[in-house]
Amino acid sequence: MNRSRQQHALSELGRRTTAPPISWLMRLTLERPRLISLAAGFTDRASLPVAETRELLEELLRSPRRGQSVLQYGTTLGDARLRERTARRLCELDAPAGRPETYDASRLLITSGSQQLLYMVTEALCDPGDIVLVEDPTYFVYLGIMQSHGLQGRGIRIDDRGLDLPHLERTLESLRRTGALPRVKLLYVVSYFQNPTGLCTSFERKVGALELLRHYERAAGHPLYLMEDAAYRELGFAGADIPSALAAGRLAGRVIHTGTYSKPFATGARVGFGVLPQPLFTAVERIKGNHDFGTSNLVQQLLASALATGRYQRHLSALRLRYARKAGLMAAAARSHFPPTVRWREPTGGLYIWAGAPPSLKTGVRSACFRKALQREVLYVPGELCYTPDPSRSKPNHEMRLSFGGASLGAIREGMRRLGRVLTNLSQ
Amino acid sequence: MNRSRQQHALSELGRRTTAPPISWLMRLTLERPRLISLAAGFTDRASLPVAETRELLEELLRSPRRGQSVLQYGTTLGDARLRERTARRLCELDAPAGRPETYDASRLLITSGSQQLLYMVTEALCDPGDIVLVEDPTYFVYLGIMQSHGLQGRGIRIDDRGLDLPHLERTLESLRRTGALPRVKLLYVVSYFQNPTGLCTSFERKVGALELLRHYERAAGHPLYLMEDAAYRELGFAGADIPSALAAGRLAGRVIHTGTYSKPFATGARVGFGVLPQPLFTAVERIKGNHDFGTSNLVQQLLASALATGRYQRHLSALRLRYARKAGLMAAAARSHFPPTVRWREPTGGLYIWAGAPPSLKTGVRSACFRKALQREVLYVPGELCYTPDPSRSKPNHEMRLSFGGASLGAIREGMRRLGRVLTNLSQ
Repeated sequence: MNRSRQQHALSELGRRTTAPPISWLMRLTLERPRLISLAAGFTDRASLPVAETRELLEELLRSPRRGQSVLQYGTTLGDARLRERTARRLCELDAPAGRPETYDASRLLITSGSQQLLYMVTEALCDPGDIVLVEDPTYFVYLGIMQSHGLQGRGIRIDDRGLDLPHLERTLESLRRTGALPRVKLLYVVSYFQNPTGLCTSFERKVGALELLRHYERAAGHPLYLMEDAAYRELGFAGADIPSALAAGRLAGRVIHTGTYSKPFATGARVGFGVLPQPLFTAVERIKGNHDFGTSNLVQQLLASALATGRYQRHLSALRLRYARKAGLMAAAARSHFPPTVRWREPTGGLYIWAGAPPSLKTGVRSACFRKALQREVLYVPGELCYTPDPSRSKPNHEMRLSFGGASLGAIREGMRRLGRVLTNLSQ
Repeated sequence: MNRSRQQHALSELGRRTTAPPISWLMRLTLERPRLISLAAGFTDRASLPVAETRELLEELLRSPRRGQSVLQYGTTLGDARLRERTARRLCELDAPAGRPETYDASRLLITSGSQQLLYMVTEALCDPGDIVLVEDPTYFVYLGIMQSHGLQGRGIRIDDRGLDLPHLERTLESLRRTGALPRVKLLYVVSYFQNPTGLCTSFERKVGALELLRHYERAAGHPLYLMEDAAYRELGFAGADIPSALAAGRLAGRVIHTGTYSKPFATGARVGFGVLPQPLFTAVERIKGNHDFGTSNLVQQLLASALATGRYQRHLSALRLRYARKAGLMAAAARSHFPPTVRWREPTGGLYIWAGAPPSLKTGVRSACFRKALQREVLYVPGELCYTPDPSRSKPNHEMRLSFGGASLGAIREGMRRLGRVLTNLSQ
């Protein structure tokens, strides 16, 4: 028993769990009222569906009978109507690809944001020392879950079509050679307008990844899952959509698909969902029974009604236009103010622009760039936070995630101008 | 690596987590529409505050500015106004006992029901093999959390003033003698109108338990916490209230206090809270950041407004009268229909009557009593489910938990009549 245990009584997990970067980013924002935050993944405040929500809740609570069912406990798996509608919607989004049985509502459960599903899947699959493959870079809050559970990460490179399959194969092969493959449990992919890069993984790459995982299952001794986080799927600016990994036919039996209504409707509602194969589904259902035995019925029924009345769909159309405009504004500002050595892509959806400076221009939390940006009252997410520790490479430290989600049009314009000044000065 | 791991890839926790008894009790209820359930811990449907909630949400969503803040992400710790009001309320309930600093809002965080707090505290403190002391009997969903985390339980006897302190002391002493004390992390107590027995723990017993725990800390090598679950505190039928363990002066530094707005206001909202000492507070805050980085802002602001406008307090007064009436009805039915060999207490609050048959009359899930009750379409919670496995005693199997919460007045009357018939027949 070591000293800190003697003093604190904390568990292994309790001691491992570090402060998430998001908390000091948020604290910085709160402490400095003049700060322009291009860091937060908040959604656009002015676009939040206040009137729609008021109408929906008024309808739900108008009759005592219906209102009572809204204010009573639900079940652990979630509201039947919302599960049904969500499953049908996923099936329609993927059509004509995919087998109907994959989208059965009995394979879907509702969670408190998709974050809770990521947490519970990790609990259900991973023991300390296990390995999770993640994109390089990836969603930094998921890295916190991994760290908390004592997991090791391996970063899989991505390009503008998503996962680099040859690199995934080399990584799996190297894990097989060293005997570490039995510790691998899943590959986590943010497949639509990725957080942080804004990139999408093509359907072919998803199928290719599933085939590679299947190939290595024999050596692993158990299933290797693809966990597809589709949080930003509905935030594409153009209509075209890529089928989800659930559409991968027989390979769908290895797909964990997570989604959310937070980003496309209201982050204040916190309703997410997941589609899972057995026996993982049952394990996660039981864990959810211990976490909270069901997400708030009130917010679930709000979402079910938003979908049923078409208000969700109408809101989403308006929201896409709004984000497209904000993304365009941020891209125009990057063109005007960033030095040409800083590379970035025009976003096609989601909430983020990922900008890469030359490797010599550090952007990390201890860098001159981050400090000077703060001096000018502008905040970004340092790219280094989005990389898992991986013994096979050092963490890149010359990138930044810029969000056009929460900031106003004026704040985006001014924030990018200030950041451009910092980058230009440091590039000379 | 065993066979099931090879097949399933599930973690230790994933494999340990069993189906909670609540899920088959609920399934039974859904499958048998004629069944009268005296098992569910549901709240009284007719009393749910539909009109109040409609008004509160209308007020919150009337102006776009306020509405937007309701529909945006909040912080991991919860809405500042709700934390402030909850902390103040706890302080007022305990007054004049307690030190003001114990009730500072900075020590309080908001969770998705108090269940989530019980889960996160367990994660933060306990490793597999650790020991949790619980009441004998206790809240069976907490036993599920313990089982899932691979924990051992020790049952501490209770009487009509709560914890049996001499038995607690003998248990701690025996754990010290066998060298197991370093594995003990906390004592979990449902201190008000306990689930399942309806009993309250007196303030003197809480202080006595805290003193005993403090005494054994040296041998444990770390703090020993008292986790006080006050879920039913506000559901007392008479006005008088016992101060919480937070009022225990300097000993409050070892108190984890959990409460909820689910039972006293709306189970469909799922808003709970916890007051915790450091470093546990920070550990739980970080874990919450990984679980969901904050409970739905919408339901939090609903509760904050219910408290601020006095609607919460008015609802609670009406609710207490309603439950007092239902409890009285159930007690009258027990007097009329139960054989005199079945012992129970007149409830003074909460949602439950705990009835004990003679030890020879088994009530467990495989008993004739349970089967015959189901044949007559009435369901109760078998008492055996409320006992932790404990090597020092066998599980009592002759009790039942009867809830007057969810059932209608007519269903209580008829359900008790049927159950009385079953018990009378088996007693002859």
